[in-house]
Amino acid sequence: MNVVIPLYPRFTALDAVGPYTVLAFAPGWTVTFAAAEAGPVTDDQGTLTLMATASYADVPAPDVIVVPGGPGTLDVLEDEALVGWIRQAHEHTRWTTSVCSGSLLLGAAGLLQGVKVTTHWAILEFLTRYGAEAVSERVVGEGKIVTAAGVSAGIDMALTLLAQATDVETAQSVQLAIEYDPRPPFSCGSPKTAPEGMAARALGLIS
Amino acid sequence: MNVVIPLYPRFTALDAVGPYTVLAFAPGWTVTFAAAEAGPVTDDQGTLTLMATASYADVPAPDVIVVPGGPGTLDVLEDEALVGWIRQAHEHTRWTTSVCSGSLLLGAAGLLQGVKVTTHWAILEFLTRYGAEAVSERVVGEGKIVTAAGVSAGIDMALTLLAQATDVETAQSVQLAIEYDPRPPFSCGSPKTAPEGMAARALGLIS
Repeated sequence: MNVVIPLYPRFTALDAVGPYTVLAFAPGWTVTFAAAEAGPVTDDQGTLTLMATASYADVPAPDVIVVPGGPGTLDVLEDEALVGWIRQAHEHTRWTTSVCSGSLLLGAAGLLQGVKVTTHWAILEFLTRYGAEAVSERVVGEGKIVTAAGVSAGIDMALTLLAQATDVETAQSVQLAIEYDPRPPFSCGSPKTAPEGMAARALGLIS
Repeated sequence: MNVVIPLYPRFTALDAVGPYTVLAFAPGWTVTFAAAEAGPVTDDQGTLTLMATASYADVPAPDVIVVPGGPGTLDVLEDEALVGWIRQAHEHTRWTTSVCSGSLLLGAAGLLQGVKVTTHWAILEFLTRYGAEAVSERVVGEGKIVTAAGVSAGIDMALTLLAQATDVETAQSVQLAIEYDPRPPFSCGSPKTAPEGMAARALGLIS
């Protein structure tokens, strides 16, 4: 399977690298980072730079696309190089997926009309502007559109996809290889469990 | 706080980018990727290249170092540029940490004698050659040495460190910002819970 992860300025690193690590560990899977032009792309903190090794023109027909999110999403919603590529690549994919605010780019590409979708908790209501049915879940799949909640949720999504694309045992072997046996030190990863006032504080970190 | 993550060829991407994302989201924290020379460093899959923006000489006295692991660890255990930097930086750190096989580099730097340490489940016994007391836990701290289990465990370690360095609420706000509310689709992230035969299959993916 050929997976492409498009990068754009001010993406959130873990949105891209979580699913990357899961899928790139899978035997026979290749994951390529792409951008309008091959070259360096810097993240939302300004301190992590990943190399895109392909241009969108180089990868017109991937099996899977994983669109990461980040504060930079809002700046590229009308970037036709990216959005047009998503729209066209989607015609060829087995799965078209997003992590966090990457879902807005699927929306901008016109792919979410009437589709059940999730995203980062802070922007869930934004999805309705694209005609999507926004739901608060960790990973949501409807047809070939698969979306994950914020940032770290891409790891769960990638393992879910991998099991569907191959078999449960292959996904389990990757999970064990990356020792994905999470033990968050706090029960604060969702607004449903976070203490009062924490959502406002978290929003201050990401806006 | 100034955090430095050293990179070397064939590191595992999530080992570095998990803790990076947690710590770089923390207000006032700066995370720098370093290498012997500033420039691109490619991961264990050969498909992800991160830019080191500093040389080791540029960052002699960080507050925290996070040494990632990966198949490439074994090739740099005698690399004095890296190991010597770890040894010297450790004199200045508040915490000297590792993810996955990065622990072997702390051992090679002579920092683990008599220290309780963890690492990826597959190489736990290797730590004893450095005089360490190897334990099978998610995150282990003893004094200023803090070590995490395989790959994804760096996220848990970084949240734990952040709470100690600042306060619980700051760590919780980052956890909520990155929506770290993990929902692994399988209970297979540890050899303790994985089905029989899965460890051998996982080893085939990482060796």
